[in-house]
Amino acid sequence: MKSKGLLFVISGPSGVGKGSVCAKLLAEESNLRLSVSDTTRAPREGEKNGIDYSFITKEQFLTNVKNDAYLEWAEVYGNFYGTPKEAVERNIQTGTDTLLEIDTQGASLIKEKRPDGIFIFIAPPDYSTLESRLRGRNTDSEETILKRLKQFEEEIRRMPMYDYVVVNDDLDGAAAKVRAIIVGEHQRFANTTVFADLFSEDDKL
Amino acid sequence: MKSKGLLFVISGPSGVGKGSVCAKLLAEESNLRLSVSDTTRAPREGEKNGIDYSFITKEQFLTNVKNDAYLEWAEVYGNFYGTPKEAVERNIQTGTDTLLEIDTQGASLIKEKRPDGIFIFIAPPDYSTLESRLRGRNTDSEETILKRLKQFEEEIRRMPMYDYVVVNDDLDGAAAKVRAIIVGEHQRFANTTVFADLFSEDDKL
Repeated sequence: MKSKGLLFVISGPSGVGKGSVCAKLLAEESNLRLSVSDTTRAPREGEKNGIDYSFITKEQFLTNVKNDAYLEWAEVYGNFYGTPKEAVERNIQTGTDTLLEIDTQGASLIKEKRPDGIFIFIAPPDYSTLESRLRGRNTDSEETILKRLKQFEEEIRRMPMYDYVVVNDDLDGAAAKVRAIIVGEHQRFANTTVFADLFSEDDKL
Repeated sequence: MKSKGLLFVISGPSGVGKGSVCAKLLAEESNLRLSVSDTTRAPREGEKNGIDYSFITKEQFLTNVKNDAYLEWAEVYGNFYGTPKEAVERNIQTGTDTLLEIDTQGASLIKEKRPDGIFIFIAPPDYSTLESRLRGRNTDSEETILKRLKQFEEEIRRMPMYDYVVVNDDLDGAAAKVRAIIVGEHQRFANTTVFADLFSEDDKL
């Protein structure tokens, strides 16, 4: 009996290195698939359509919203972002884990729809590390950076809704900790299939 | 700020290989200390006093019970077993993890006293594997083996009170899974110390 796939939601403040952690996880975990979000924003340098995001028009996006095709969607800095429902559901049913990288606002919305998800907050070791990372990325304007730093404390205050907090002071270490969380979550009583005939669905709640 | 030590309770049916899993964990995890139980039973071949158990007299044991020195104690097959409180408490305060290997009856009692413990059930892959392990150990009488097999299904039915279930179909694999659980549990929001000044004790519940 194959166990169902689990949904891992990776979130945290902008600039904390969520993307690098996720890339490492995807390279190392063969049973993990990235949930590719739809967005109406322009691709950043190096971003590929259908891999980093599905880049779609605002018109397409609003049609999808009307058709209830998103697990969550939001407008951030004037652009739309949405998590398609279908791929997540399909992965869970086929026993594949889903990795969903999303900002803290989106994670809150996902938590309402999918409280069964495992919510992991990637945290910077401290405030100044985050600031230098944001500036070092060189992809955002000064105005955007200041906006994001202000948002940072608000995002940190959302930590209590997460199951786990992983400090990204070192990429390899942070990715290894998330991998341990993935292995551990598959061992939860509710997710094991051993001697399954002895237990009802109610026992698993 | 150092985080507090966690209590990991390893349990499961007799003969499932809990001891081998624990020995491997203790060899690999430097921040993990075994909680050594008191017992009135005779040492088995190779067992060392103060390492495998503290072998004490029935009189000493009953004095300790009277002094409320045990987190739990029980009489099993005519012998007394008890988990001393003091070492567990000291480890938690000093940031050292405690590993407690105990039968399922004892684990239920520990759970009442220490619901903050992390309860891990070591399961055999199936019934027949357990039976051949019990017989292969050659340390128990036929009567004891039959008693334990009868007890097995009752023990398996206690699985829902555990946080995690790890199937011991392969010692290295099982130990690696428990180690992942240990790493993961330290990443729980309640156990992290990052940005701790922003949160109250109530947030950590």
